[in-house]
Amino acid sequence: MTKQYYSYENFRDDLKTLTKKIDKPFDVILAVSRGGLTLGHFLGEYYNLREVYAINTIGYDDTRKLDEVKVFNIPDLSHAKSVLIVDDIVDSGDTLIVVLQVLREKFPQAEFHIASLFYKFTARIKPDWYAKEATTWIDFFWVVDLKN
Amino acid sequence: MTKQYYSYENFRDDLKTLTKKIDKPFDVILAVSRGGLTLGHFLGEYYNLREVYAINTIGYDDTRKLDEVKVFNIPDLSHAKSVLIVDDIVDSGDTLIVVLQVLREKFPQAEFHIASLFYKFTARIKPDWYAKEATTWIDFFWVVDLKN
Repeated sequence: MTKQYYSYENFRDDLKTLTKKIDKPFDVILAVSRGGLTLGHFLGEYYNLREVYAINTIGYDDTRKLDEVKVFNIPDLSHAKSVLIVDDIVDSGDTLIVVLQVLREKFPQAEFHIASLFYKFTARIKPDWYAKEATTWIDFFWVVDLKN
Repeated sequence: MTKQYYSYENFRDDLKTLTKKIDKPFDVILAVSRGGLTLGHFLGEYYNLREVYAINTIGYDDTRKLDEVKVFNIPDLSHAKSVLIVDDIVDSGDTLIVVLQVLREKFPQAEFHIASLFYKFTARIKPDWYAKEATTWIDFFWVVDLKN
């Protein structure tokens, strides 16, 4: 598979694109750890929202069974009206499907939307907003820049 | 107060300095939201730790009373041996003092250490590791880059 280096400058420019696409209000940003943390941080600053939370998941890539994705450290969203879930890439979509399922059951009063930098068109779920289609393996700057 | 723009390149270089200073092992990274999120993300990737969690605080800067810092969305650290708490800057230190207090009470089995990018020498608590002294107001790239 080909690889694509994704620099901070790419990220900054794509984030400007993404914020232009996001056309619904939200009162909480929920970052899927680890991939969504930097994105969540930037969007929290941009929208001046102090409520930037994180959620953790463990997936078992070898089995591809949804019931083997574990979601934990779920923040208290019982006061939230509209939650923007953010992740770096919607690849298979399996993790986000389970995250959504768990959150909707636990917090039926809230709306949930998804924003990501990348979206692979073969994923089982489509983010409400994304910046780019993913066609190669992406080496994000937060993964590789400290190693160089 | 003078201002200093802190770019992504500054951050990347300081993070390389910081990782050279951190000389104790840890099994969990706990980012103080929002300021510590990007730092926590990068360190999680660098140390190949999937356990990158976030914690939230609300402070009341006008009163300066420690008992008015509220800590919430505390992740489950009952399995953790050593936790690295990360934040962008240790300024007054008030927030981190309360965070440490709450965590040590709730998870007495764990050790806690603090790493930050900046440390103001007048703070009431000193991080175990930091990259730079803060002498001016710092405009972090995650705050200003999307607004330009």
